[in-house]
Amino acid sequence: MILHDYWRSGAGYRVRIALALKGVAHDRVTHDLRTGAQRDPAYVALAPQGLVPAIEADGMTLTQSLAILEWIEESWPKPALLPADAAGRAIVRSMAALIACDIHPLNNLRVLNTLRADLGAEQPQVDAWIARWIGDGFAALETLIARHGAGFAYGDKPTIADCCLVPQVYSAKRFAVDLSAYPRLVAVSERTQAIEAVSATHPSSQSDAD
Amino acid sequence: MILHDYWRSGAGYRVRIALALKGVAHDRVTHDLRTGAQRDPAYVALAPQGLVPAIEADGMTLTQSLAILEWIEESWPKPALLPADAAGRAIVRSMAALIACDIHPLNNLRVLNTLRADLGAEQPQVDAWIARWIGDGFAALETLIARHGAGFAYGDKPTIADCCLVPQVYSAKRFAVDLSAYPRLVAVSERTQAIEAVSATHPSSQSDAD
Repeated sequence: MILHDYWRSGAGYRVRIALALKGVAHDRVTHDLRTGAQRDPAYVALAPQGLVPAIEADGMTLTQSLAILEWIEESWPKPALLPADAAGRAIVRSMAALIACDIHPLNNLRVLNTLRADLGAEQPQVDAWIARWIGDGFAALETLIARHGAGFAYGDKPTIADCCLVPQVYSAKRFAVDLSAYPRLVAVSERTQAIEAVSATHPSSQSDAD
Repeated sequence: MILHDYWRSGAGYRVRIALALKGVAHDRVTHDLRTGAQRDPAYVALAPQGLVPAIEADGMTLTQSLAILEWIEESWPKPALLPADAAGRAIVRSMAALIACDIHPLNNLRVLNTLRADLGAEQPQVDAWIARWIGDGFAALETLIARHGAGFAYGDKPTIADCCLVPQVYSAKRFAVDLSAYPRLVAVSERTQAIEAVSATHPSSQSDAD
């Protein structure tokens, strides 16, 4: 199994965490998003969006991190990254989607590049844009973690919500977003990141890191 | 069961289609996003992001359309909106996530309002922004539908990918995006929309439509 990835891809980091929590061995092929390597025709033939992450396994290519997380959960059920009950699964998936739909897509490299190139945004405007979407999402997530968390985002075991949260907190810190209003969220992220297998998935530990 | 919705919410429209395909009866409470009604404290207490859609059922509130679609699929398994095999489920979920993560969040009302208010974007720039993200996503989706579709986005039955596609095509048409490069995608959307139960979920047929 091959994971197509880039060390600073937040969506790739989600998949690395899930594979680490399950102990799933895999090779890693990297694409430097800063040079546009992910738009190489050979890669686009595999992954039509030309984005990372993607998984090559069993003769097929899977894209989109949320879909990949569900596939990992189905393929290697233990330890479970979704709760046993339908309501719990819905809450965990909503936390993951809050990050994957309403925060991350607004702040990724190609969107920030478009703000600068097509809308003439200066760095303070880009910073405010980033902080706005992270702040809106994290405020809601802090409430959801207060309701449903018990050490992790949902309950007392890591779930796909934590797989999405850790990379988003990493990204927020990179962008110097003030996280003081989200103490539960930060604590959950730190607790997940402290798991030994997870710590090895940190961007700075990847072979393609600067 | 209550669906919190707004007639022009693309994410709400996804949920309406899934409920219609399953024949699930529900009440509908509407929130006018143009007046910010979704930020009413009573609603935010239920749905901390203050966004639609949300489902109230069994004493809980579920948010985020992708999570709600999965919950609907688990709660009313027939007719199935996910394929029976793991690889098929992964492909369908990747198509849904492509729309829900990489197209729709960039073009929703609060993001377009922010482009105008905070970045001073003029209408031609906003139109180009919208067309860019729809174009990038639809080009990849057209390829995926060519590979995996057979009448619908995946195979010969509607799935959650179609639940996401129909509202995105509706939105693209509203924004006057040229869809001539995506004939398969448009045909799939029209075929889904022609299903009698689905046709009733069209935005213009909702009680809160202008």
